[in-house]
Amino acid sequence: MRFQKLKRFSCFVFYSIFKTKMVKKLASKNNKIELGLLENSSFKALLNSKYQFSKKIVIVDENTQELCWPFLLTTFEELKEAEVIVLPTGEENKVMEVCFQVWGAFTNYQVQRNDLIINLGGGVVTDMGGFIASVFKRGVDFINIPTTLLAMVDASVGGKTGINLDVHKNQLGVFSNPELTICDASFLATLPEKEMISGKAEIIKHALINSRSFFDELTQYLEGVPNDEILAKAIQIKADIVDQDFREQGERKKLNFGHTIGHSIEGLLLHNKIEVTHGECVAWGMLVEAYISHEVATLPKNELQEIEQLIRGQYETLAINDTIFDSLIQLMKHDKKNNSDKINFTLLQKIGLAKINYQLEEDVILRALNHVFGQ
Amino acid sequence: MRFQKLKRFSCFVFYSIFKTKMVKKLASKNNKIELGLLENSSFKALLNSKYQFSKKIVIVDENTQELCWPFLLTTFEELKEAEVIVLPTGEENKVMEVCFQVWGAFTNYQVQRNDLIINLGGGVVTDMGGFIASVFKRGVDFINIPTTLLAMVDASVGGKTGINLDVHKNQLGVFSNPELTICDASFLATLPEKEMISGKAEIIKHALINSRSFFDELTQYLEGVPNDEILAKAIQIKADIVDQDFREQGERKKLNFGHTIGHSIEGLLLHNKIEVTHGECVAWGMLVEAYISHEVATLPKNELQEIEQLIRGQYETLAINDTIFDSLIQLMKHDKKNNSDKINFTLLQKIGLAKINYQLEEDVILRALNHVFGQ
Repeated sequence: MRFQKLKRFSCFVFYSIFKTKMVKKLASKNNKIELGLLENSSFKALLNSKYQFSKKIVIVDENTQELCWPFLLTTFEELKEAEVIVLPTGEENKVMEVCFQVWGAFTNYQVQRNDLIINLGGGVVTDMGGFIASVFKRGVDFINIPTTLLAMVDASVGGKTGINLDVHKNQLGVFSNPELTICDASFLATLPEKEMISGKAEIIKHALINSRSFFDELTQYLEGVPNDEILAKAIQIKADIVDQDFREQGERKKLNFGHTIGHSIEGLLLHNKIEVTHGECVAWGMLVEAYISHEVATLPKNELQEIEQLIRGQYETLAINDTIFDSLIQLMKHDKKNNSDKINFTLLQKIGLAKINYQLEEDVILRALNHVFGQ
Repeated sequence: MRFQKLKRFSCFVFYSIFKTKMVKKLASKNNKIELGLLENSSFKALLNSKYQFSKKIVIVDENTQELCWPFLLTTFEELKEAEVIVLPTGEENKVMEVCFQVWGAFTNYQVQRNDLIINLGGGVVTDMGGFIASVFKRGVDFINIPTTLLAMVDASVGGKTGINLDVHKNQLGVFSNPELTICDASFLATLPEKEMISGKAEIIKHALINSRSFFDELTQYLEGVPNDEILAKAIQIKADIVDQDFREQGERKKLNFGHTIGHSIEGLLLHNKIEVTHGECVAWGMLVEAYISHEVATLPKNELQEIEQLIRGQYETLAINDTIFDSLIQLMKHDKKNNSDKINFTLLQKIGLAKINYQLEEDVILRALNHVFGQ
């Protein structure tokens, strides 16, 4: 507990530098998102009103059980009777077998529809916990408390829940919104550096598809923990896009930039037991897709170079070479984003402006992969 | 194929007796339901418009593969390239392991979000097929073609999809509407007598909770295949209730009449490998709950007797005695419909008028079980 308090103390210091003790409510019609200290958010009020008589089940992973849960337990007396379910850490555990065990536990705890699931963790916990809650008895309410940068800016906003099926990322899932998402940046003090860098990839993506000025701002602040202003901008861009198109019929596909390539890289490397973060894969996916954007869309050469400089400067090169290009392409064909045998891409017309639904042939993709990963 | 044609021919004769070659579109804001011959419904037009370029995957069980699928294959050339997935027949196969195999097949067929799943079968096929489609890539469109009476009047209307978890019925699932449901009564000619009797239980339930006059009408027509008018009335009652309350916050709980007891009976008997239909369990569940309605709500004695006469006249007594009453109560406590340790019931105030949210103690339930099943 001492350790945990120390963590929070250090967070608090970091936090107050940015003068964000107030909780900021982000504007979104589909998602209720708050940014700021958990204890100042509407979390406590919710526990004491709508969920006063509900069982509370907290889903954590091994990391957040140790680093984050003790803070909640000591801060919110409403949680002292809560049941805690600990998921094994890591993307390779985002699978049905684990869900099954959790549903078994729900059954033992006699979880009912009007109870409450609290997902405390990174993207694996919020994605899988959201899925587990949404499917149990056709839907139990859940609250997301993302503890990683990636989950704050991406996974816990937008109502996508899901798990993997073999090498296929998020192949099973539903669209389902949490009752509330609280992004408390003080949890980021518990985050390993590689996870921080992973999360930044999605922030970069939000800038690339939506805002040239945000991209310029980012290039100034890429070191260390992003401040609350950057977090708020990154989350707001996603929330706005999701509001326009919850079920990903059009506009929301912009958020897939970097992910057609990125997901296939991630699926294949994880399948080959090579440890890699989602953000790293997305970062390199964005670079490949920036190459394609230059060839197929209108991304100017100098902007491609800006992107290349940023990615190569921030992200270590991945263990990819031309022997696995074909496997990558096969995986892309299974991607949710495709409508036919051609592969669907979101590309950049310029930095800050994305366009959806480019249907590309394999040769274009192979050329770009060669540009980025070729010897 | 000869056999199949014969079946359809006999259906057609039956069908024309009731002068229902026209397709009736039922009024519902949440569900698009058509009642009449499949070939005259908007099924063909949908296949040729929205789903013209989609892969078609037909989910059947071993019975409908033999008895119903050949008719579709020969009638709709749009389906000649369709992939057919055959589920093992029976409620005991409505489980995640089977879903898993189907998702594996979807992955092999490279099913995409804009493809189409066609569920052709009884409640197990429409419940499980709907769940499988709704969860794959966060939702692939599906069309329900129920082939049993139970599925026509109940399972395929209202957006509930789901599978069982151990002895817990529909413990996993989502609310998700099909693109279209077509109830073609000519498929009922392929139905074994016990399945017909099973389906009638839900029709009786719709009358009991909603319409005294429909109940009186039913008592005249309980033998043989229900005509289209009865089908239409039964389906419309459900569709109206679902329209008012899709996510079962209130009004929709009326449809649970008979099911708190019925589900627990069904779960326990199936667990003990005793073959029983859903409708039989619901019928006896309704009788037990009618006893409770007489004791706790205002159901008059003479109306209880009317219900008892109808159920005991139509349904063979189940293999239940007082040694399993405690197990039944334990199962009820796991029911989705509960909000606390008490057990939630929908009861009858009179025939044609149900009231929701009676929270009952075990002793009331035990007394009613004893009345119905006691020696």
